[in-house]
Amino acid sequence: MTADLDPQGAGSLLVRAMRGEPVAHRPVWFMRQAGRSLPEYRALRSAGGLLELCHDPALAAEVTMQPVRRHGVDAAILFSDIVFPLHAIGVGVEIRPGVGPVLDEPVRTRADLERLRPFEPDADAPELAEAVRLVRADLSVPVIGFAGAPFTVASYLVEGGPSKMQARTRALMLADPALWTALCERLADHAVTSLTAQVQAGAAAVQLFDSWAGSLSAERYEAQVLPVMRTLVERLRPLGVPVVSFALGGGHLLELLAAAGADVVGVDWRTPLSQARTRLGASVALQGNLDPAACLAGWEVARASADAVLADAPEHGHVFNLGHGVFPETDPGILTALVAHVHERTASPPIPAGAHVS
Amino acid sequence: MTADLDPQGAGSLLVRAMRGEPVAHRPVWFMRQAGRSLPEYRALRSAGGLLELCHDPALAAEVTMQPVRRHGVDAAILFSDIVFPLHAIGVGVEIRPGVGPVLDEPVRTRADLERLRPFEPDADAPELAEAVRLVRADLSVPVIGFAGAPFTVASYLVEGGPSKMQARTRALMLADPALWTALCERLADHAVTSLTAQVQAGAAAVQLFDSWAGSLSAERYEAQVLPVMRTLVERLRPLGVPVVSFALGGGHLLELLAAAGADVVGVDWRTPLSQARTRLGASVALQGNLDPAACLAGWEVARASADAVLADAPEHGHVFNLGHGVFPETDPGILTALVAHVHERTASPPIPAGAHVS
Repeated sequence: MTADLDPQGAGSLLVRAMRGEPVAHRPVWFMRQAGRSLPEYRALRSAGGLLELCHDPALAAEVTMQPVRRHGVDAAILFSDIVFPLHAIGVGVEIRPGVGPVLDEPVRTRADLERLRPFEPDADAPELAEAVRLVRADLSVPVIGFAGAPFTVASYLVEGGPSKMQARTRALMLADPALWTALCERLADHAVTSLTAQVQAGAAAVQLFDSWAGSLSAERYEAQVLPVMRTLVERLRPLGVPVVSFALGGGHLLELLAAAGADVVGVDWRTPLSQARTRLGASVALQGNLDPAACLAGWEVARASADAVLADAPEHGHVFNLGHGVFPETDPGILTALVAHVHERTASPPIPAGAHVS
Repeated sequence: MTADLDPQGAGSLLVRAMRGEPVAHRPVWFMRQAGRSLPEYRALRSAGGLLELCHDPALAAEVTMQPVRRHGVDAAILFSDIVFPLHAIGVGVEIRPGVGPVLDEPVRTRADLERLRPFEPDADAPELAEAVRLVRADLSVPVIGFAGAPFTVASYLVEGGPSKMQARTRALMLADPALWTALCERLADHAVTSLTAQVQAGAAAVQLFDSWAGSLSAERYEAQVLPVMRTLVERLRPLGVPVVSFALGGGHLLELLAAAGADVVGVDWRTPLSQARTRLGASVALQGNLDPAACLAGWEVARASADAVLADAPEHGHVFNLGHGVFPETDPGILTALVAHVHERTASPPIPAGAHVS
């Protein structure tokens, strides 16, 4: 299948940029582009809880598509939560507004681990694939599959909810490395089965969110996370789609995210893209890294900050994104304008600086 | 005055190590060594709020001395809070248990800024110096003066309280750089007057806590924090004591902390001390960097982790500490044992590995 024949897959701007191929303009999407920054989402969410929404394929698809319709981004990402597979296998967990995922009981022992059975999307949550199919049928841009990476999901299980520092998690890793590995392997299984279902339903790329891995030293990550990540990525390889790996505050871990086999490394706003390119080489694509706070500071600041990102980014192998998720208080108009601006500024042949249309 | 004549000042193990001089054994103290990890503190705290405690010189001194008596650490650090000067000048702020400092009204405009008058310790809070004098009179180890660095104090003011990401703060920096600088300069004044009072009362070193500066890119820090930090450190220079600068998650900022003039850079657990030494050179001393989570994982893990820190640390110019504050749930017995262990392992002549006494 050639590029032109598969505009929601290998032929999309997104996947071509992720493969390091030349593209007509830089693809753009925003982490957390769906959700609380959009009034149409808030209207719809008043109906019920976040995990309930994820379990309703029509609602999940609708929320996934809202930012694509509004902003004109170059990819949808399945609206979900990293604890979705846990919820789907019956683990007691809820998303508390303003807090995050809270577990009924933390997982800290071998016995606790037994509660984490495998996640079988066909049986446990067919709505996952159904939502991807609905989005694919309705949009002309690719869909990115969504999963939490084992360290971050494990941290919620061990802490019992969000934590500032993942202290108990790091303590468990040190105190009982065998239990830690067993826990991560089980969660890696969940990510593999979840992403496999999403790709089989039409997702063109997948992203592993490792939000809290930045709390680990590189030495600890290499010893106790990298092996399970490497196996996880290997198991995704036969799906034939690019794998994106992102760790907030993970500037010191970029080489290890790449070493796990990621095709694309998400870069937060604290690591210059030019530095990431130097460290990782041109065989790894980069995604990022506008400071989402710049989108709270008015259009002029947002535009100038986006231009600085583009000036620092590699010409090939770059997907424009934020360096972290959209803040809920973001004016969605700024995001819409950013998409148009990045498209214009990176159009091939590029429009010179100072001559942009808007 | 020679070293031997000033065991609470320039002759102390602490200050000598901070100056890069040879010492009989590695000095040890722990960030947040006073406070909730100690039962004697919890007993005393039941009396009232944290800021009220800081305003009572006898209580503040007592709490400051508790960990020195219990653990045998080589320094006391004045028990305080980074919002103490704000509270002392009448800004509405309270420390909510489990949350942190919460402001009655955030500071986001020029008009808000007018509420931040200078902090004059002699008039506003003579108990600050009095607490230092009481500690000095009662102990034989040096006292470290305590202050928040402008970025972090500003972030509480701008956000109105603790925040995960300091998003509004970063947005304000970008949207109104002049207001940002004015705010930081006022807070730098507070730090200077507060630390000057503490040193004049006998503190032998001072530490600037920049807990949230790690949320900035190096570029942003250099442009909008470094200038004010540089001036701040210059103004402390005549006091003649070492200045320690610490930024949690600031591995990407170490060069900039040193560029501001810090004599000692605090290193969190995510940056190896050997890497910090290579990057900063031997003219800057290092403080750190045991992962405080290792102290939650039992004695064997804590000891092995401390040994790994010592193996990675420079022989001269190193103060043993955690890479972040003591977690409240830490068994204080582990901390006491760590102090003895580090002292033994670094005693001059050093005891060979595998032959330690305990």
